Amino acid sequence: MSVYPIILSQTKFAHKENLNYPFEERAMQFGDGVYEVIRIYNGNFYLIEEHVDRFFRSAEAVKIKLPFTKNELTSLLNNLLLKNSLTTDAKLYLQVSRGSATRDHLFPADVDANIYAYIQDQARNTSALNDGVKTITHPDVRWEYCYIKSLNLLPNVLAKQTASENGAYEAILHKNGIVTECSSSNVYLIKDGIIYTHPTTKNILHGCVRMQVEKFAKDLNIPLKEEPFTVDDISQADEIFLTSSTSEVLPIVTVDDTQIGNGIPGHLTRLLQNAYENDIKTLTSNKVEQTS
Amino acid sequence: MSVYPIILSQTKFAHKENLNYPFEERAMQFGDGVYEVIRIYNGNFYLIEEHVDRFFRSAEAVKIKLPFTKNELTSLLNNLLLKNSLTTDAKLYLQVSRGSATRDHLFPADVDANIYAYIQDQARNTSALNDGVKTITHPDVRWEYCYIKSLNLLPNVLAKQTASENGAYEAILHKNGIVTECSSSNVYLIKDGIIYTHPTTKNILHGCVRMQVEKFAKDLNIPLKEEPFTVDDISQADEIFLTSSTSEVLPIVTVDDTQIGNGIPGHLTRLLQNAYENDIKTLTSNKVEQTS
Repeated sequence: MSVYPIILSQTKFAHKENLNYPFEERAMQFGDGVYEVIRIYNGNFYLIEEHVDRFFRSAEAVKIKLPFTKNELTSLLNNLLLKNSLTTDAKLYLQVSRGSATRDHLFPADVDANIYAYIQDQARNTSALNDGVKTITHPDVRWEYCYIKSLNLLPNVLAKQTASENGAYEAILHKNGIVTECSSSNVYLIKDGIIYTHPTTKNILHGCVRMQVEKFAKDLNIPLKEEPFTVDDISQADEIFLTSSTSEVLPIVTVDDTQIGNGIPGHLTRLLQNAYENDIKTLTSNKVEQTS
Repeated sequence: MSVYPIILSQTKFAHKENLNYPFEERAMQFGDGVYEVIRIYNGNFYLIEEHVDRFFRSAEAVKIKLPFTKNELTSLLNNLLLKNSLTTDAKLYLQVSRGSATRDHLFPADVDANIYAYIQDQARNTSALNDGVKTITHPDVRWEYCYIKSLNLLPNVLAKQTASENGAYEAILHKNGIVTECSSSNVYLIKDGIIYTHPTTKNILHGCVRMQVEKFAKDLNIPLKEEPFTVDDISQADEIFLTSSTSEVLPIVTVDDTQIGNGIPGHLTRLLQNAYENDIKTLTSNKVEQTS
């Protein structure tokens, strides 16, 4: 797969290897920027409108001015997608920083934002989607504004690495025992036929797949309550799952040393996974209709 | 002033303009690294041992392996200092990230850390040191491990920018009313002849100048208590000041709309400033002895 990244602020295409930034770049020195990861199935963006909306919300929250409208950005991303000859499932990474300037905490004057995007292969994680994954619990030590999809990801990196070193796929984060989300995904507990997940406060990312799961649950008549659950609730759970753009709807079968339910993905999680499958199939057939 | 930055991992000197990093660099995408700023007076590093110690502590806390010993790093930094023909006061910026790799939260395998340092002019802020500065109070929304001098500085950037937009020099951060530190400095309150400052928990940076102020206070027989003070205590304060490598010992004369003491730098703050002046004079005379 050939990769043509794009510096969006310059509307310029270049090969990935030829793009770089000076070291006095505010993403490099302050993590002073925001980003998105958008899934691509069979040559189509999935939930691009939701991701572009959130990108603008995040940029506004940190007071970075974007040099285009939502429609213009969507066109640029579609243009980038066309330049890549995609034969596989993939994802797009999109980032903006406040720009390059002599190091100073204060916003630099008269500096353009640095914006870039590129597309990478991203195969669906079929075995994990079928079998479910192991997780650990981990303290949530992140800042208070995790609804902003910022480049300050060091606590997420450290939590996910700890999970991996303990043979787990993800870390379920909790503040004083209350589960917020995972290091790079939202998390849900099912008990007595009801789905529980942390409300969309400033403490968690408002996931695009999370929004979609709310729709699926409504369509399937499964009650979903935006109420937090605790670490103590986990051992009594019937099912647990997580969602993200790269992980999709992913069953959790173990939390620390606790087996969830029967240790295999649960019935309601499967229904939501099926709804996700149908959703991305619709996407594909739309494309077929467009191109036929 | 000519600037010769150095990529320390390669022990290579190059002009600043010719140094850059690819965009899949973990500092760029995760803020996955730590840094130091070291002050240079009259061609001498100030508190270099303390800064190098903290650099190693920060790197260890985030599990980044440094490719040199403390002594080797100190030699490299001294080498960099020699390459710069310094005729002014200056500062050194030093950064390490976990390296460049295809984007993934998990630590990349077999990737070298990216390390660089460069020296910039930094004039002493004489008028602020004489007159004192205005500050605002601001919620501390940062992560729980601020003792690590990490590249995740977005909340610090936003707080300092808010201060600036309100005509202030710094933001005094507080968690539920308890003052932790400022956006890029430690902060102290003096009441009835006693200095109060937040203890060195994981919530604040263990400042190098803060350590020095503890010594100065001891030498001057001024009691210093590592006890937190609150936002409510501020209006009753006799004096307030902040410290950092770039700000030195800086009097605070206004917090929000509250004038501190008589609205001019207080007596004990002046004694600590004098101790700082004497400390850096000693540094200079040491150099004169070495080169004579």
